[in-house]
Amino acid sequence: MTFSRVVALSGGVGGARFLDGVARALPPGALTAVVNTGDDFTHLGLSICPDVDTVMYTLAAVGDEERGWGLAGETFAAMEMVRRYGGPDWFNLGDRDLATHLLRSEALAKGESLTAVTARLCAALGVGARVLPMADAPCRTMIETVADGTLPFQQWFVGRRAQPAVRAVRFEGRPPATREVLDAIDACELVLIPPSNPYVSIDPILSLDGVAAAIANKPVVAVSPILGGRAVKGPLGTMIPQLTGAAASASAVARHYGSLLRGFVVERGDERDIDGIAVRATDTLMRTRDDRLRLAQQTLAFASELVA
Amino acid sequence: MTFSRVVALSGGVGGARFLDGVARALPPGALTAVVNTGDDFTHLGLSICPDVDTVMYTLAAVGDEERGWGLAGETFAAMEMVRRYGGPDWFNLGDRDLATHLLRSEALAKGESLTAVTARLCAALGVGARVLPMADAPCRTMIETVADGTLPFQQWFVGRRAQPAVRAVRFEGRPPATREVLDAIDACELVLIPPSNPYVSIDPILSLDGVAAAIANKPVVAVSPILGGRAVKGPLGTMIPQLTGAAASASAVARHYGSLLRGFVVERGDERDIDGIAVRATDTLMRTRDDRLRLAQQTLAFASELVA
Repeated sequence: MTFSRVVALSGGVGGARFLDGVARALPPGALTAVVNTGDDFTHLGLSICPDVDTVMYTLAAVGDEERGWGLAGETFAAMEMVRRYGGPDWFNLGDRDLATHLLRSEALAKGESLTAVTARLCAALGVGARVLPMADAPCRTMIETVADGTLPFQQWFVGRRAQPAVRAVRFEGRPPATREVLDAIDACELVLIPPSNPYVSIDPILSLDGVAAAIANKPVVAVSPILGGRAVKGPLGTMIPQLTGAAASASAVARHYGSLLRGFVVERGDERDIDGIAVRATDTLMRTRDDRLRLAQQTLAFASELVA
Repeated sequence: MTFSRVVALSGGVGGARFLDGVARALPPGALTAVVNTGDDFTHLGLSICPDVDTVMYTLAAVGDEERGWGLAGETFAAMEMVRRYGGPDWFNLGDRDLATHLLRSEALAKGESLTAVTARLCAALGVGARVLPMADAPCRTMIETVADGTLPFQQWFVGRRAQPAVRAVRFEGRPPATREVLDAIDACELVLIPPSNPYVSIDPILSLDGVAAAIANKPVVAVSPILGGRAVKGPLGTMIPQLTGAAASASAVARHYGSLLRGFVVERGDERDIDGIAVRATDTLMRTRDDRLRLAQQTLAFASELVA
């Protein structure tokens, strides 16, 4: 079948790149991205939504492909001046990126919802897919470390470069998923889980009241964020052994999602270790925009077979 | 006498340039600038203090001398992006300038006073003079126009390029002057009024409870912002006839300040029209930093004669 209503859950870089492929593989307007906001935080008085922005910038094709975050051709004059003032510079904000945070923060302070302001910003950048923050109220992903106490996600991830070993991941706030998110899931034909970190990018979405139950009625196909035992990017490769005692592998990710998955797309060779679930092995590394499109097309074709 | 405790009231560009000369003409630490905050406003959710920043940047020698506002070598990438989003771009904020507004806004939101955060920012930039905002609570200068209703200062000055004819200037809020301002005036040997706009830069300071009374006990010397019937910069040249019916002139400024002044420094030739007050005529146009120092030295020498 050809899908016309697809929901993709998403974290940051890996998720956004896969979504870019999915958006181009589907008819215009068919994709709704439901984006993790557990990493959101307030910095320099601004409301920062790293995953929402990465998805927005990537889908608008204005993101920095090399760096993986922020805008292409970005400058950092404001942060240099913050540094000169002795202000906090551990989280780098680009000059043009600041416009996003300023306009969003002002709108939120005036009572506009994160869902509404995200729609406005996406429209201005020409994003064709619908981008929905998972929640309008704060949900804070907290990292319980083995030796450094509990840290808010960004302080652990950026401030401490994800170095402190992780004992557990907690979600504080537990806001409801938005009506828009639940409606989009209810209306969709397929849920995709991109190659994002399950613990800190996807679980925050699944943890919201109603989301797991709504998704349980839908065919769910995930793409493994672990290739040959390693994460392409980010701390997942070390988090899996820290949190489960097992080696990092695609099968560890499949076990984590468990019965939620109808199908799982993995790197060639990784299929050997996975039982009890439909698996499609292919080249999952996305080096180019063409890679994204091809992986999205293969994932959608696989999903189409599964729901036939 | 050599002054060791001088207070200078100040607005933006003209005031800041004169203060730069005064700061260098006096012993280190002798100058306290009391700066108009009636132009302050909130923009993009940020607390903007145009005159405080112009004084701070000018005294730190990091200001843009050509443009008269903002920082030298400034870039405007954030504002370009605000424009792309369709956000408000009528008030231009530079990228490095944004750092000032971000750090100040965050500090104010956390409960720090404008006086305290200004001191911290000035210290970081190496400003030797003490820079005191006139008040910690908002005071809003409102421009009653002849034909366009009442506009907040920045909307009239920047948004409408000071074009709508002025019927009256009002100050809303009327906060108390800070304890620091009143103490600095009480302790000083001399009060200087730079070549700033009396109506929108100096009157907001003088209008605060206690300031006029405290200054009345001190020798006050002003420098005329009108040279040969014209303002060097800004809308004063048209405001004087609009508000008083008289032509723009140094004598009109002297009449406005009235008995407050002990002495008045004017451009050569302008002294002819002024009676009943000690006048010193000199070259008052400040084209270079040397001009500022020379004008400051001449003003201080004149004041020294007056108080001897």
